[in-house]
Amino acid sequence: MEKLKAIINSISSVDRSLEKEIQFHIDNLTKPPGSLGKLEEIALTYCLIFNTLQPQWGKKRLFVFAADHGVAVEGVSAFPQEVTSQMVRNMAAGGAAINVLARHVGAEAKIIDIGVKDSLEGVSGIIPKKIKPGTNNIAIGPAMAEEEAYQAIEIGIELAQEAYKEGVTLIGTGEMGIANTTSASALFTALLPASAEEVTGYGTGIDEITRLKKIEVIKRALKVNQNHLNHPFSTLAALGGLEIAAICGVILGAASLRIPVVVDGFISSAGVLVAGKLCPQVKDYLFFSHCSDEMGHRIFFERFGAAPLLDLKLRLGEGTGAALAMSLIEAAIKLYNEMATFSGAGVSRKRK
Amino acid sequence: MEKLKAIINSISSVDRSLEKEIQFHIDNLTKPPGSLGKLEEIALTYCLIFNTLQPQWGKKRLFVFAADHGVAVEGVSAFPQEVTSQMVRNMAAGGAAINVLARHVGAEAKIIDIGVKDSLEGVSGIIPKKIKPGTNNIAIGPAMAEEEAYQAIEIGIELAQEAYKEGVTLIGTGEMGIANTTSASALFTALLPASAEEVTGYGTGIDEITRLKKIEVIKRALKVNQNHLNHPFSTLAALGGLEIAAICGVILGAASLRIPVVVDGFISSAGVLVAGKLCPQVKDYLFFSHCSDEMGHRIFFERFGAAPLLDLKLRLGEGTGAALAMSLIEAAIKLYNEMATFSGAGVSRKRK
Repeated sequence: MEKLKAIINSISSVDRSLEKEIQFHIDNLTKPPGSLGKLEEIALTYCLIFNTLQPQWGKKRLFVFAADHGVAVEGVSAFPQEVTSQMVRNMAAGGAAINVLARHVGAEAKIIDIGVKDSLEGVSGIIPKKIKPGTNNIAIGPAMAEEEAYQAIEIGIELAQEAYKEGVTLIGTGEMGIANTTSASALFTALLPASAEEVTGYGTGIDEITRLKKIEVIKRALKVNQNHLNHPFSTLAALGGLEIAAICGVILGAASLRIPVVVDGFISSAGVLVAGKLCPQVKDYLFFSHCSDEMGHRIFFERFGAAPLLDLKLRLGEGTGAALAMSLIEAAIKLYNEMATFSGAGVSRKRK
Repeated sequence: MEKLKAIINSISSVDRSLEKEIQFHIDNLTKPPGSLGKLEEIALTYCLIFNTLQPQWGKKRLFVFAADHGVAVEGVSAFPQEVTSQMVRNMAAGGAAINVLARHVGAEAKIIDIGVKDSLEGVSGIIPKKIKPGTNNIAIGPAMAEEEAYQAIEIGIELAQEAYKEGVTLIGTGEMGIANTTSASALFTALLPASAEEVTGYGTGIDEITRLKKIEVIKRALKVNQNHLNHPFSTLAALGGLEIAAICGVILGAASLRIPVVVDGFISSAGVLVAGKLCPQVKDYLFFSHCSDEMGHRIFFERFGAAPLLDLKLRLGEGTGAALAMSLIEAAIKLYNEMATFSGAGVSRKRK
């Protein structure tokens, strides 16, 4: 835990001392001031994170953490639990949506087994970091021991550190895990806070009766784990998601090294929420890729105080929204670096 | 005019006979049904346009039409008129936002002089199709003769035909022209229809006093040209925009050849509106890239009955939003073509 505390203590808000100079450059590009909208805001944020007037663009890397959830036995998902490992195999073979989108935007997709039930023996193309074969059922007790949550966070931190050393300048988050919207909704309920009804949606496509059962399961999870909900770290361990803990770790690790992170959807936002409760300064290093079609993601944005870049009614996870947003962020940095300036191109400025 | 009538008559609604089979394939990809949101809708639309279950992906081409506007003398823009030709030179040199974004998404950007005041002599990298050196001031009479509007439309049609022959499977629209939001707002007022107040915004960044003057100019334009507003084609000639006429032509030409068009922002939508009034079936062939931050674009979407893909507060034009959306559309087609299927990847389906 000392290592985690040291990482958290090393994270500070971005240095805004170059803000005026960065904005001056943006306003000097051959376009009406402000006319590139959110792309201008992205460029400013990216330059502030790297504290530079001349942003470099390196590798883009997506971390897709896969894990199983004991709470799946409560029948909260539209898909059977074995789909987690089946989809991990699909990702390892390059056939999932995240593989296609990562290739499209030129990002590396790293698939990490952080807690899949299946041993995944002999499956190549995945990073084996299994802490245990899935969490325990949160409806009857804690998802995992605090030590296990700590290990998952640490793996996330280490992956961010490795990415930094290998020249990655933009990290994306993603995940796969049947029943993980239940875990994420439980975390939102406890930490935003919110009512279970507000933040519990249809996941991969359950019906309204199953959603009501899911809400009841989440309420039970909060009740049986109530003694663990007094600190964000112990809340994370209690309500789980090994992949959510790892995402939390990636965010903390990236912020400590001043690398921006593109957050995917609903599940990734639960990792953000825990990281933000442990260290509010991480917010400065985050881009939110999209608003998920999963009910409750809007509530997260309102209460956490953030705004997404895209709204494409995605609700797949895996990092699919993060991959698409990586391309937008890259576009914003290219505009900053490659556009001509008014004086350079001999273009007249706006009338006073 | 006979040629234009023939083109319009050759445009039919898309054949939806493969819709169920296309949707079956989309639902067979390894993801919960519907979870890729608008990307699934894009793939369906693209497949319907090409009437195929196996969509091909070819070249992406952006047409950026540049023209001047006589109405600029009324002081309706934040920038002086010479910026049109200065920006065309900037585009020819590769330094404008549209050049950066076209390179980013791998699209060709074709810069067409359809009516710039400056002769642009000796400027390489632009396609010379000048019909006349800018429109007349619409506040005192028609922007152009009907024959001139017809010529501009014809150039758009010919460029679409050339693109088709050269293996383009996705066309984007864009433009450059100081004061062209005035022309576009006048067209929206006449054809949506709408009040001038609803569809007149701040363009490149005018103040509220100038916006009120712009509204007054548009009202005068509609009054002095009232005898020309009984048909969409004559309305286009009266309220102008040589670039808007050319965009209208590209849309008609593309729809007649069944090539999808990605519409950029506010000005391009005025071209869509005229094309849609001449031939409502063109709608089937259009993707709307984004909702512009220019006031009134939302009114266009509401009344025309369309929905944009992105909302990034862009208000630059040039085709910048269209370029970004091209990449999204490409992503959607790659997902359709490259994702594994449930049976192929051995992934269990959703429970009944």
